[in-house]
Amino acid sequence: MASDEREIRTVHSIWIDSVNAGDLARLLTLVAEDVVFLAPGQAPSGREGFSSNFTAAHQQMRICCTSELEEVVIVGEVACTRSRDALSVTLRAGEKAAQFAGHRMTLYRKQRDGRWLLSRDAHTLSAVA
Amino acid sequence: MASDEREIRTVHSIWIDSVNAGDLARLLTLVAEDVVFLAPGQAPSGREGFSSNFTAAHQQMRICCTSELEEVVIVGEVACTRSRDALSVTLRAGEKAAQFAGHRMTLYRKQRDGRWLLSRDAHTLSAVA
Repeated sequence: MASDEREIRTVHSIWIDSVNAGDLARLLTLVAEDVVFLAPGQAPSGREGFSSNFTAAHQQMRICCTSELEEVVIVGEVACTRSRDALSVTLRAGEKAAQFAGHRMTLYRKQRDGRWLLSRDAHTLSAVA
Repeated sequence: MASDEREIRTVHSIWIDSVNAGDLARLLTLVAEDVVFLAPGQAPSGREGFSSNFTAAHQQMRICCTSELEEVVIVGEVACTRSRDALSVTLRAGEKAAQFAGHRMTLYRKQRDGRWLLSRDAHTLSAVA
């Protein structure tokens, strides 16, 4: 496996671990300054919107996310990944839980220092029975 | 505006017009052989899945899609667009209509002959009141 693909797979893995750990500071080290996130039923968000949504979600819920990379395509300084994601949330106030499933498409861009940062991200997660 | 961006904006415009016209043959000229579409609540689909879903939808519904390009990023042979989309569907059997709104992130790849083809696409459209 080429080093760029290894690096992107590592970033993806750290991303999911950090989501589950509620580690916003770590997540923000992995995203580009102009990152944009797209999600069903939400306005597009950048670093600030992502941060406030993430913080609010973790205050209200326990979050367990799993993500299986199905594809890593690298073309020069750009990479596009596709993953199958699942999300389980449990309200901290009670036992009510919800399950979401879908996919995610992420665009990464290689920085001058060699790091790959998350640049654009769209997920299709919707509630499942 | 650079010619690549003009070309991508043209493909985007033809795409939306062809969706509304039910012109599957035209749409298929705009997608790569290995295209993948991601949508909430659906399994990922390629050319065959897209074709059967599109045909079934147009048999049952009148479809009116609008899409406003919010961003076109081109890096070498790869381009990524983000658009704000809305979809209105009316069942052919009656007057019942549904509205969907969301965004779309599309990855295009430039072919050897200079054409830009749709390669990966994820939308976040969800029902609105």
